[in-house]
Amino acid sequence: MSELTPQRVKDAYDALMSGDRARAAEYWDPKVRFLTPGNHQYAGWHEGLETFLDFIDKVQEASGGSFVIDPVTILVNDEGYSIDVNRTSGTRAHAAAGAESPYERLQIEGLHLLKWVNGRIVEGRGAIFGDGLTNFNQWWSPVGSDGRRVTV
Amino acid sequence: MSELTPQRVKDAYDALMSGDRARAAEYWDPKVRFLTPGNHQYAGWHEGLETFLDFIDKVQEASGGSFVIDPVTILVNDEGYSIDVNRTSGTRAHAAAGAESPYERLQIEGLHLLKWVNGRIVEGRGAIFGDGLTNFNQWWSPVGSDGRRVTV
Amino acid sequence: MSELTPQRVKDAYDALMSGDRARAAEYWDPKVRFLTPGNHQYAGWHEGLETFLDFIDKVQEASGGSFVIDPVTILVNDEGYSIDVNRTSGTRAHAAAGAESPYERLQIEGLHLLKWVNGRIVEGRGAIFGDGLTNFNQWWSPVGSDGRRVTV
Amino acid sequence: MSELTPQRVKDAYDALMSGDRARAAEYWDPKVRFLTPGNHQYAGWHEGLETFLDFIDKVQEASGGSFVIDPVTILVNDEGYSIDVNRTSGTRAHAAAGAESPYERLQIEGLHLLKWVNGRIVEGRGAIFGDGLTNFNQWWSPVGSDGRRVTV
Repeated sequence: MSELTPQRVKDAYDALMSGDRARAAEYWDPKVRFLTPGNHQYAGWHEGLETFLDFIDKVQEASGGSFVIDPVTILVNDEGYSIDVNRTSGTRAHAAAGAESPYERLQIEGLHLLKWVNGRIVEGRGAIFGDGLTNFNQWWSPVGSDGRRVTV
Repeated sequence: MSELTPQRVKDAYDALMSGDRARAAEYWDPKVRFLTPGNHQYAGWHEGLETFLDFIDKVQEASGGSFVIDPVTILVNDEGYSIDVNRTSGTRAHAAAGAESPYERLQIEGLHLLKWVNGRIVEGRGAIFGDGLTNFNQWWSPVGSDGRRVTV
Repeated sequence: MSELTPQRVKDAYDALMSGDRARAAEYWDPKVRFLTPGNHQYAGWHEGLETFLDFIDKVQEASGGSFVIDPVTILVNDEGYSIDVNRTSGTRAHAAAGAESPYERLQIEGLHLLKWVNGRIVEGRGAIFGDGLTNFNQWWSPVGSDGRRVTV
Repeated sequence: MSELTPQRVKDAYDALMSGDRARAAEYWDPKVRFLTPGNHQYAGWHEGLETFLDFIDKVQEASGGSFVIDPVTILVNDEGYSIDVNRTSGTRAHAAAGAESPYERLQIEGLHLLKWVNGRIVEGRGAIFGDGLTNFNQWWSPVGSDGRRVTV
């Protein structure tokens, strides 16, 4: 079993975002569950690595690939917890270029708390600073800034 | 063209809820658009009678048929507007009997503003009194009171 | 007792906004209660005409006098109800000119339901269309778009 | 300068909650700023130790002393960050015994991210998992479960 270090946390995300499910499975337990914050259509517990990866695909689809997570700092402890703090931004795929409405432009600072067991992540939860959850709920809503419903 | 009266407003809803799309079309324009309040997964403009009827089917499905709209009062004017004020309640189909969590039990008071042209409704919008929109967003969220994602 | 007409509803608001409390009292019962929607610091039932007038003063103070209510339509019925539909906008007094953040700029469409007894309003409630309540909660929050707490 | 350890994080909170401002000042910089999440009446940046301590007093007042923070885990790193993860609960002072409404009963899991410089905390921010921010906004709102405005 690998020691829990900031580098291992980074590697886990690299594997997750690689699109290579076998590589992701080196870090993320097949039964991993992840709690997306808020009450929007993708909020709540995503149960199992397949479901979680589907959600990540949805993030990329909804943002037209514009979703960016900039690392701020990573913390680990010897109780098997890691937290990665990040600045996150993205624009909905349907939005006009330069859109600044909170329904279309996400700009938040938040973090993920991960619980590791035997070298793999078994549970994760996200949280957002300030009033960013309002932006997150609006961004994920099917409603654009003009109230029209958008697909994806 | 029929005169706009409280009775005609009632008849329009009876037709809408009858499941008989031909009857609904006597009152609701084929291009009617309806703005469901909030930022949950079914919020925003439902465009066209077919889409609106699909949404109403979804309400029944999500509530396991428990959605009840109790009329309080109806107002009409000679500018072609009607407003029906209602108490609305319903329990999510997945909830345990007697569930009282706002994620599972909806209990709001609100209204629909309808715009009539040539005897038929061309636009409608809902609004909710007090802090009922928070309950509405939670009720429609895919997240149950324990954070688990539920289908429908 | 005066008949309930759209003109009388307009007159009631003119009296309310006149700053002349005696004139306001011709239309608004001394025990009138008004439910401001949302869960922000001025949400909930404002009990009694004095308290309600204090709230209206607060609206003017918070908006630096920029709060504008544009009428859309008025409906009355013979059960003693009136509803005035309005477009409402305003900018927080502390905001920079041209501020467009939802924490600083309010732009909503909504309505007031008033209950009249013996020619005077005894109860009122506001409601907002679309996702405007989110804007309303943000606008009333003590938090500006940069998270700094602002006075008033 | 003391090394940043989980014990030092615990000591900082003990000093903060002790009511002894001199002791608090051993851990918290006089210019510390703290970002309370949400858009309720106490959300946003509390600037300076005095202002932050006033907010903590307000928490105790609003909860009638029932506010409890149960530690889950603490993480620190050598970049000067600590994060304490907690389960938090409390009941509004005005609530009836056993109140379970989200406007009266707070039950959340969240964390504080603290930035330490020269052995003292210069900045802190809170964040909440799941949909707990909705509960937090409702709990802090002046509106009780019946919509009545409450003092404190």
